Amino acid sequence: MATQARPVPEGILHDRFQAVRALSRAIAAPLSDADATIQPMPDASPAKWHLAHTSWFFETFILRDHVPGYRLFDQAWAYLFNSYYEGEGDRIARAKRGMLSRPSLAEVQNYRGHVDAALLDALSGLPAEALNLVELGLHHEQQHQELMLMDMLATFASNPLLPSAWLRREDDAPPALPALSGVRAHGGIFEIGHDGRGFGFDCESPRHPALIHPHELADRLVTNGEWLRFVGENGYRRPDLWLSDGWQWVKENGIEAPLYWQSDGEDWLRFGLDGLKPLRLAEPVCHISYYEADAFARWAGARLPTEEEWEVAAAGLDPMGGNQLDEAGPAHPHPAPNGTGLRQIFGDVWEWTASSFSPYPGFRPEAGAVGEYNGKFMCNQFVLRGGSCATPRGHVRASYRNFFYPHQRWQFSGLRLARDL
Amino acid sequence: MATQARPVPEGILHDRFQAVRALSRAIAAPLSDADATIQPMPDASPAKWHLAHTSWFFETFILRDHVPGYRLFDQAWAYLFNSYYEGEGDRIARAKRGMLSRPSLAEVQNYRGHVDAALLDALSGLPAEALNLVELGLHHEQQHQELMLMDMLATFASNPLLPSAWLRREDDAPPALPALSGVRAHGGIFEIGHDGRGFGFDCESPRHPALIHPHELADRLVTNGEWLRFVGENGYRRPDLWLSDGWQWVKENGIEAPLYWQSDGEDWLRFGLDGLKPLRLAEPVCHISYYEADAFARWAGARLPTEEEWEVAAAGLDPMGGNQLDEAGPAHPHPAPNGTGLRQIFGDVWEWTASSFSPYPGFRPEAGAVGEYNGKFMCNQFVLRGGSCATPRGHVRASYRNFFYPHQRWQFSGLRLARDL
Amino acid sequence: MATQARPVPEGILHDRFQAVRALSRAIAAPLSDADATIQPMPDASPAKWHLAHTSWFFETFILRDHVPGYRLFDQAWAYLFNSYYEGEGDRIARAKRGMLSRPSLAEVQNYRGHVDAALLDALSGLPAEALNLVELGLHHEQQHQELMLMDMLATFASNPLLPSAWLRREDDAPPALPALSGVRAHGGIFEIGHDGRGFGFDCESPRHPALIHPHELADRLVTNGEWLRFVGENGYRRPDLWLSDGWQWVKENGIEAPLYWQSDGEDWLRFGLDGLKPLRLAEPVCHISYYEADAFARWAGARLPTEEEWEVAAAGLDPMGGNQLDEAGPAHPHPAPNGTGLRQIFGDVWEWTASSFSPYPGFRPEAGAVGEYNGKFMCNQFVLRGGSCATPRGHVRASYRNFFYPHQRWQFSGLRLARDL
Amino acid sequence: MATQARPVPEGILHDRFQAVRALSRAIAAPLSDADATIQPMPDASPAKWHLAHTSWFFETFILRDHVPGYRLFDQAWAYLFNSYYEGEGDRIARAKRGMLSRPSLAEVQNYRGHVDAALLDALSGLPAEALNLVELGLHHEQQHQELMLMDMLATFASNPLLPSAWLRREDDAPPALPALSGVRAHGGIFEIGHDGRGFGFDCESPRHPALIHPHELADRLVTNGEWLRFVGENGYRRPDLWLSDGWQWVKENGIEAPLYWQSDGEDWLRFGLDGLKPLRLAEPVCHISYYEADAFARWAGARLPTEEEWEVAAAGLDPMGGNQLDEAGPAHPHPAPNGTGLRQIFGDVWEWTASSFSPYPGFRPEAGAVGEYNGKFMCNQFVLRGGSCATPRGHVRASYRNFFYPHQRWQFSGLRLARDL
Repeated sequence: MATQARPVPEGILHDRFQAVRALSRAIAAPLSDADATIQPMPDASPAKWHLAHTSWFFETFILRDHVPGYRLFDQAWAYLFNSYYEGEGDRIARAKRGMLSRPSLAEVQNYRGHVDAALLDALSGLPAEALNLVELGLHHEQQHQELMLMDMLATFASNPLLPSAWLRREDDAPPALPALSGVRAHGGIFEIGHDGRGFGFDCESPRHPALIHPHELADRLVTNGEWLRFVGENGYRRPDLWLSDGWQWVKENGIEAPLYWQSDGEDWLRFGLDGLKPLRLAEPVCHISYYEADAFARWAGARLPTEEEWEVAAAGLDPMGGNQLDEAGPAHPHPAPNGTGLRQIFGDVWEWTASSFSPYPGFRPEAGAVGEYNGKFMCNQFVLRGGSCATPRGHVRASYRNFFYPHQRWQFSGLRLARDL
Repeated sequence: MATQARPVPEGILHDRFQAVRALSRAIAAPLSDADATIQPMPDASPAKWHLAHTSWFFETFILRDHVPGYRLFDQAWAYLFNSYYEGEGDRIARAKRGMLSRPSLAEVQNYRGHVDAALLDALSGLPAEALNLVELGLHHEQQHQELMLMDMLATFASNPLLPSAWLRREDDAPPALPALSGVRAHGGIFEIGHDGRGFGFDCESPRHPALIHPHELADRLVTNGEWLRFVGENGYRRPDLWLSDGWQWVKENGIEAPLYWQSDGEDWLRFGLDGLKPLRLAEPVCHISYYEADAFARWAGARLPTEEEWEVAAAGLDPMGGNQLDEAGPAHPHPAPNGTGLRQIFGDVWEWTASSFSPYPGFRPEAGAVGEYNGKFMCNQFVLRGGSCATPRGHVRASYRNFFYPHQRWQFSGLRLARDL
Repeated sequence: MATQARPVPEGILHDRFQAVRALSRAIAAPLSDADATIQPMPDASPAKWHLAHTSWFFETFILRDHVPGYRLFDQAWAYLFNSYYEGEGDRIARAKRGMLSRPSLAEVQNYRGHVDAALLDALSGLPAEALNLVELGLHHEQQHQELMLMDMLATFASNPLLPSAWLRREDDAPPALPALSGVRAHGGIFEIGHDGRGFGFDCESPRHPALIHPHELADRLVTNGEWLRFVGENGYRRPDLWLSDGWQWVKENGIEAPLYWQSDGEDWLRFGLDGLKPLRLAEPVCHISYYEADAFARWAGARLPTEEEWEVAAAGLDPMGGNQLDEAGPAHPHPAPNGTGLRQIFGDVWEWTASSFSPYPGFRPEAGAVGEYNGKFMCNQFVLRGGSCATPRGHVRASYRNFFYPHQRWQFSGLRLARDL
Repeated sequence: MATQARPVPEGILHDRFQAVRALSRAIAAPLSDADATIQPMPDASPAKWHLAHTSWFFETFILRDHVPGYRLFDQAWAYLFNSYYEGEGDRIARAKRGMLSRPSLAEVQNYRGHVDAALLDALSGLPAEALNLVELGLHHEQQHQELMLMDMLATFASNPLLPSAWLRREDDAPPALPALSGVRAHGGIFEIGHDGRGFGFDCESPRHPALIHPHELADRLVTNGEWLRFVGENGYRRPDLWLSDGWQWVKENGIEAPLYWQSDGEDWLRFGLDGLKPLRLAEPVCHISYYEADAFARWAGARLPTEEEWEVAAAGLDPMGGNQLDEAGPAHPHPAPNGTGLRQIFGDVWEWTASSFSPYPGFRPEAGAVGEYNGKFMCNQFVLRGGSCATPRGHVRASYRNFFYPHQRWQFSGLRLARDL
């Protein structure tokens, strides 16, 4: 949860609330009620569920708890739209979220309207503690906006017709791919974690010193073209390149390429929210698991960066920059721009790090149900950094820690290489 | 497939086609696009899929094969809406039918309209062979009408909100339950199977003599009240009452009552397409597996009838009578009417028999893909007889053989007791 | 259980008891303690367990229940060596029988000695009811002798070293394969089931009339050579030949040949208790599932016989004849002898029939725990007839009904073709 | 693998080789061939397999690769006794190791004798590289000695008779439990990892500076008595105490106590290689998973130490001290001795740390197949430190890193609490 002393001014919060809530609606705009109902796998949730759950979050932790006289939109919905908060009682099994043809998408949109009106109405009278929860709720909703894009993609990819959510936006001819260079970093003690300015999740705190060893980071992300070489040189068939668990995953699932790649016999295509398109070699590779990222790095004679190395490198860069989500549409990573120095740090694809998701020294989860936000997931997952083309601009920062299980790859994930010096 | 010499006259077929196709639409009327998209379990299919598959059947086996110049509505849809015809090529995995948010319900209804128009247009020019296939297609669609009701019920039962598809139709006060009597039948050789008059599926043929032993059949179905006694006397906890496979099924699945029953601590309720309602004791028990039917019969000191015994008993009764489906609505079994002699033979609930589904002596499946209709399922399943409240009136007959696996119970299935004499 | 009026004379029973018990020991003779401990799959049991369980049967149902003052060899062993008798209380999970390194094989042999001595000592004083149970126990042990051979084969086949239990007995040069002829049978009513002379299991009764339709039975079993043609003509790759459940079984398990066949690239070999040997074409095919037998018959334009057809044909033949088990050793089916008329009816391989294992009209299981012997398995299994090369001679008869699930094939099972006339 | 410049002198290696190899035999001494054949779960291996695999290691990497003219004991055994070395070719599936009744335990002991003789014979002529591999092989065998004890315990615990491997050695009356105190540690930069003196596995290197934050370590291990309070205060029923993955593990497996604990209704017992005995409260809790350790620490208002904190604390202590394995017997943790300062650092139980098993900065696996020893497991596992009562004395050291998956608990694992200062 938020680690900030003073809440955001109410006027700003008012506008941000409206903007964030509007983006969720816009993302769902191409979806029919049926599209928004499907759960393509237990990891993913229906779009309708995301729309409702983010509203439940505001309704539960702000309206119910801090607005006297507020009446729940529907008593029965807490059971449907609680995600994983044990402190908030029983809930529908995660794998059963796709059974909810009722309430309809329209009813869920009504629910959103109801919560929006009540919250905007109450905003000026909320105590600081509740305003912090509004802030948390907005960041929470931004996370679900990216999840919606991921889950919509997984949904359409499960349909043999491979529908597209949006028409393809015309791309420029892809630029020539800049050569890969290394950016050297010296060792030393650096401060890591959220610095207290603006919003941060609890897992980014406390800020603390970390010891960094001399190393070098690639100045751009690994591309589809480079990944094709890995495929061509039998990267998916050489056990020596893989972690033991990764190799088992490859064999059991018959993995031969990143998720959403398919070959038509001659050429590789990739499926996205804009449909099935030829693979562009200069773009960053996307939708790979930690196992794949790790194997590729080993094949390349390199390794993944640690999250501390990444954060130190990112500290001086603009978290609002790069290819991030500005409006609803088929998020897609772009080739690295020309130039020198670290590029693509923010946006394009989440970068797998070598760091497992663990508590920082002195970490304390928040009190109450929102204390379940991050802490209880600090096991078996790896940290990803930097946001992606599907991350709403303004959501991510240098200290931001995302996390997934090492086999997961429906998120917009790629990698940047690192080397010891 | 059909075992009939002469096709139905075209005018009659024309009207029947329109009536059958209209009923499917009416059954789907209460469904939203999302309702019609959900697949609650691999055994069940989305309503949308049923609507499309039944149309694919007409399009493939009649329009494509017998109407020169007919163009498929959409080339890609054969992959989506072929059910299990290996002879018709690859198809979507059965458990993935719930991924089809596209095409939408409206598009599927357009598809139906297209097929309807083309078929009615072509009807007068079709050869006898194709007319027989139309007849088959209508019976096929009636089967799917019952499946739609079963699958809609499974869908709504998977939603914690327990929505109802139709408002409850007012019931009369339940009649006093008639006492159970036995109807004696002498042994001998009887003709079994389809007699060649009217339509019959291939598995009902050839008609052949069968040897019946003296026995007695209950004059009515087993009721919810009788089943409650079985529950109360620990019927679900006594292994001596169960087949070995049945007992394993009970333990692994924690079975304690028929499907869709739930207890609120004091009373038993049952869920149906009209919502959650108090259990009515005089109604026939419904939604039980073969294992449960067999265990109940053992507990009652009786047995299940064989399919031959049942057919001989049913031979003289009116297959158009009883509680069958006349219009779209929440199919529900009724208490036995007062009277003497065999009642509830047709309609109310399908009656589990002791007979496994096997080929009749001399059975030959049809040539071509429709030969996969029944024959390849003649293993591991049990025969049910008599139709149910969800069976469209006119579909069933004395020689009709339905079949399910012994653990399945989402169909409208119950039992009638039998005893050796 | 036994359906016989008068028990076998005690002197004869005494000798038979010693002979049967000795054969079990002889079958286990090539096994080390470790060999006798392994459970290669949940369907199979360790040899040690068979040796102990058959003794537990005598100890429980005769010594404990009918011999005053008898003390159990070890109180704790009932939990270990009860197979599936719910009436006899809890027991080790079936899949955990392979955890019993203790008691040792030597201790189990001591147990056998103890039970043997006590039973032989008590024999002359036993009431008729108990003598019938001794008779049942001997037939029970003969069943387990065949199971031991099956399970030893499964055990050794699971060891990459492919050890042999016995050295190969020298075979004669295989005879020229007799051509296949059909033996015609007219229809009519025939008596089926155990005739009350000698021992019979409860599932063979009551004897009852059955209606047979005109048909033809092959005069010998299907051979390996014929099966190779089926393989070569893509029998395992044509879904039209298979039952739906069978086809799923083929695909999920990658089935391409009978169990224990392997190809060295050029030639087919088969593994047996005498090791890995070249496949001999004139021998009956063995270790096939019902699904395979059914698919082969369809491919051959034939069908499987019903159990009634088989029994009528076998009624006049000598059940002591044919290739059955006379002494411990690597049971192996033989080519059909020259001649005319039905051959290989008894022995060589169990013959799959088209009949599911169901109760005969009027069937009543025995009272008490031995009532669980057969009746509770009358579901989902198919009947096999005629005994095999691994069936102790004297155990089988025309009315004998063996049964397995349609996917099982570690038993010595093959097929004989039939056709409607 | 070894990170040491100079090999151990050959004379010392000779004696150590004999001692280590003798201990393996002694551990297996109470086992019958059958005991040594059973695989109680896929994670565990049969004792026979351990005995053979450790010999295969010497045979493959030293005798085959470095002793001209050496002939393999049996060509076929590499397939049986390779564990996970992809570089050494195919091998028996891990879950099938329990199928090896052949070779017998006696044959495996012969194999050991053969390898011992050849290796001792060759020792004086081996190049330094091979001598380092001998050293590695000895440490490898010591690891398998502990695994043998773990797997024997799992084997006997799977037998309803609960046999004991060794008679109970008489214990003293348990001492009064010393109170728990905290030992404070200041922060700073400390050297971590193997210092190059003596043997170390590759994963302990390179030695590198680590930043430690001020904290406090408990001076002794958590006891059974303390764990009983956790159980009594519903520790296994409060989701707020658990990691999300841990809570799922608890629910899916019905976890209610440490492995090998059982309640007789009144008292708690624990099963060990000396049989089923009353639980002694002063002894360290043993056989717990990471999830349990983490939940307990949260319940206690503490946390687990990091591996760096642990190593710094252990650096000055004698790794030969404490309750470690000196001879074959039922390894069992002891109560903490009286005194002040850190106790039980070495021996008794492996201590779960909060650190996931990751490569140290600059880590490089060895070249060749032994490079698969540790590196490929650096994912999804947690580090345990300090050795246990089942660890051969002399095997462990301050820099030693053991690792298991967070749900595993058949190892001798417990915990020590830590707190931030």
